[in-house]
Amino acid sequence: MQNILLLGAGRSATSLINYLKKNAEKEEWHIKIGDFNIKLAEEKAGGHPNTSFIQFDILNEIQTKDEIAKADLVISMLPARFHPKVATACVDLGKHMVTASYNSPEVNDLSDIAKSKNTLILMECGLDPGIDHMTAMEAMNNIRKKGGKLTSFKSYTGGLVSPESDNNPWHYKFTWNPRNVVLAGQGTARFIRNGRYKYIPYHKLFSRYETIEVAELGDFEGYPNRDSLAYRKVYGIEDIPTLIRGTFRKAGFCDAWDVFVQLGVTDDTYKMEGLEEMSKRDFINTFLKYDKSTSVEDKLCESLDIKKDSDVFKRLEWMGIFEDKKVPITEGSPAQVMQAIMEEKMSLDPDDKDMIVMQHQFEYELEGKKYQLDSSIVSIGDDQKETAMSKTVGWPLGIAVKNILNKNIKLRGVQVPIKEEIYAPILKELQGMGVSFNEREREIDN
Amino acid sequence: MQNILLLGAGRSATSLINYLKKNAEKEEWHIKIGDFNIKLAEEKAGGHPNTSFIQFDILNEIQTKDEIAKADLVISMLPARFHPKVATACVDLGKHMVTASYNSPEVNDLSDIAKSKNTLILMECGLDPGIDHMTAMEAMNNIRKKGGKLTSFKSYTGGLVSPESDNNPWHYKFTWNPRNVVLAGQGTARFIRNGRYKYIPYHKLFSRYETIEVAELGDFEGYPNRDSLAYRKVYGIEDIPTLIRGTFRKAGFCDAWDVFVQLGVTDDTYKMEGLEEMSKRDFINTFLKYDKSTSVEDKLCESLDIKKDSDVFKRLEWMGIFEDKKVPITEGSPAQVMQAIMEEKMSLDPDDKDMIVMQHQFEYELEGKKYQLDSSIVSIGDDQKETAMSKTVGWPLGIAVKNILNKNIKLRGVQVPIKEEIYAPILKELQGMGVSFNEREREIDN
Repeated sequence: MQNILLLGAGRSATSLINYLKKNAEKEEWHIKIGDFNIKLAEEKAGGHPNTSFIQFDILNEIQTKDEIAKADLVISMLPARFHPKVATACVDLGKHMVTASYNSPEVNDLSDIAKSKNTLILMECGLDPGIDHMTAMEAMNNIRKKGGKLTSFKSYTGGLVSPESDNNPWHYKFTWNPRNVVLAGQGTARFIRNGRYKYIPYHKLFSRYETIEVAELGDFEGYPNRDSLAYRKVYGIEDIPTLIRGTFRKAGFCDAWDVFVQLGVTDDTYKMEGLEEMSKRDFINTFLKYDKSTSVEDKLCESLDIKKDSDVFKRLEWMGIFEDKKVPITEGSPAQVMQAIMEEKMSLDPDDKDMIVMQHQFEYELEGKKYQLDSSIVSIGDDQKETAMSKTVGWPLGIAVKNILNKNIKLRGVQVPIKEEIYAPILKELQGMGVSFNEREREIDN
Repeated sequence: MQNILLLGAGRSATSLINYLKKNAEKEEWHIKIGDFNIKLAEEKAGGHPNTSFIQFDILNEIQTKDEIAKADLVISMLPARFHPKVATACVDLGKHMVTASYNSPEVNDLSDIAKSKNTLILMECGLDPGIDHMTAMEAMNNIRKKGGKLTSFKSYTGGLVSPESDNNPWHYKFTWNPRNVVLAGQGTARFIRNGRYKYIPYHKLFSRYETIEVAELGDFEGYPNRDSLAYRKVYGIEDIPTLIRGTFRKAGFCDAWDVFVQLGVTDDTYKMEGLEEMSKRDFINTFLKYDKSTSVEDKLCESLDIKKDSDVFKRLEWMGIFEDKKVPITEGSPAQVMQAIMEEKMSLDPDDKDMIVMQHQFEYELEGKKYQLDSSIVSIGDDQKETAMSKTVGWPLGIAVKNILNKNIKLRGVQVPIKEEIYAPILKELQGMGVSFNEREREIDN
């Protein structure tokens, strides 16, 4: 019997836990589920014979050490800020650790000690980061193996609503943390294109998207993420002329979202005054010039050059921002008010399903010719428990755990899944579970 | 003999020191000038019989206490971050302190102890903050005294180049810290207008200025400063329907500056890559779309809707941003690169003079009629030592010192100059020195 300790039993752990339970008997695992909310841990264990559950508090150092000491491997689904704590304890006690969160300098510094203790700390092993790394590295290695020279890599991922549940003019619903959606893109997007560094400030981001077709799903808009440049080093492609990582939205989203960015309603840096007395209409008006003889709608359209019969304006109206109803919260930043307004409109209905779309676009040269390879993954949720997000985050973690415990993965130290030893078994099993790339390759003009 | 200890003898202390020296004999003052750079302290003392000078290090706690203990009053021209340290020592030792820097919660918390020690800590007693408070409070008190009801207060200040030295198409030169000029306005401007809260994000700030005429100097552009709302409490005008504080630039500046804001070249949040190899033209191009068949000039004009024969475009060309010459620095943020480019063009020539322009606009109701009162101060530098900035910052400080030491000002605790006891003698003496308001009042439509 090998002991797996899972810390954090929230929504995103559902598919992971189901995967672990399904494999537990055959693999001879005992799964201990720890959560600060013991009811949640109990519910997720669901009485499965190979599980137990405990109330777990990461701030309790004695409990943390005791529980990790009893485990063979720790999966952390805790908030990212706790990972240095978990990783340090795991390294001290010589226990493997797996998580879907971003690596950090603090955790990375543990790599040498982890190696000396024969321990693997596997970070970024979910969807994004996770599957994105694995599929990118696999495709780039395949190109390299056949003698091709990579010249461009663009990659976009989106957490969206599935087509069958897509019934609003934004073609968007909150399928994950709404706050992150409202704040998405803040900062400066940095990437490289044909050897030229490119920087896009936040206020230009949503007007500088690319339109990208994904097979059978139609047109999407991709806007660059904050820092694509750092991935040159991660992927070992320091000399690549074009590297862009970005976010997908359905066609039509960005132009309408840009209105909110231009107004300043996604600002999270200050608390607004007078919200108690403010209607949604007043809220929007605080971001427009004072002009007592012009309506809020007209001021908005004039200042941002929008037509009243445009799709953009229809999306704004649908959102309820011109309504004479009170804003939903009485205290907060513009971004918090906007989030509350959006949650009234964009939350999932009970039967709605989510969808993950990821597309990599590679360009490479081979024997004097130039090729473009597009590979896309589309995953659709089964329901609001086995969501596409939960599956694509949880399954890679579960498969990694299996391959670490059965010693297929022998790498040690702090790792992200960019080495074949890690990504090959994970991608292979994911494929069998329906998470696989749809590839399309063609020769392009030189 | 009363002992004045002046900490910090940099450029902005010049006029203050000259004022103190001029009054020293009659007032029976000894002025001890302390600076980390003792040469600077010696030079500023200039062999005047009522002065001495020392090497002073605020981080040396023993020296700080010793020197403050020997003084009757301390003037701090040190960087603002050191003021809590100076103020604490002054309060401990029961010595008055005067500074031109903003008050802070840390300093403000000392107020009760200061009162119990019969000590005055006078903050914000320079130009802005300083003269702005004093003149605003005087005018508002005058309106109140004659029975008027204040309905609107707008106030703009600018540190600019004097008309006789104004020989570039931006009508702007660096007369103070260039870094602050490049970063000016970042954040969100917050004010209230006709009872409506208004918020302007940085990327809209330079297209939402007001054009304001200042007598004999022509048109200026005023854009709102970061937080005007806080001044309702400071000035005791919590119910005022309109309150805007802002910054002045000469007409034409804002539209051109807005180009830099839109591009993102004033961003100070990340370090750029590849600067060693970058021309000014390349630098601008990093903020524009990739398009190999269109020139940088055309891309900029198209993306920001600028005409090539416009004044805005002429200002951009004059700045040298399209030149094929290397950027002046090889490491830094976009804002740092932009500052270096601007310093090549906008620095003062040796004979150039600076200018301070401040205008308050009040609207008030009196006996059923509505009035607008515009008062402006214009101060022009004598040379690059006795600058307008140095005079308008230093003189109010010097006059405050005189009135504290001769006991005209008897207030104690932590204060800013909003009480008549403080501002009346200062404004009266400033008037005699040529720093006075030019007032213009007229009845306006109700």
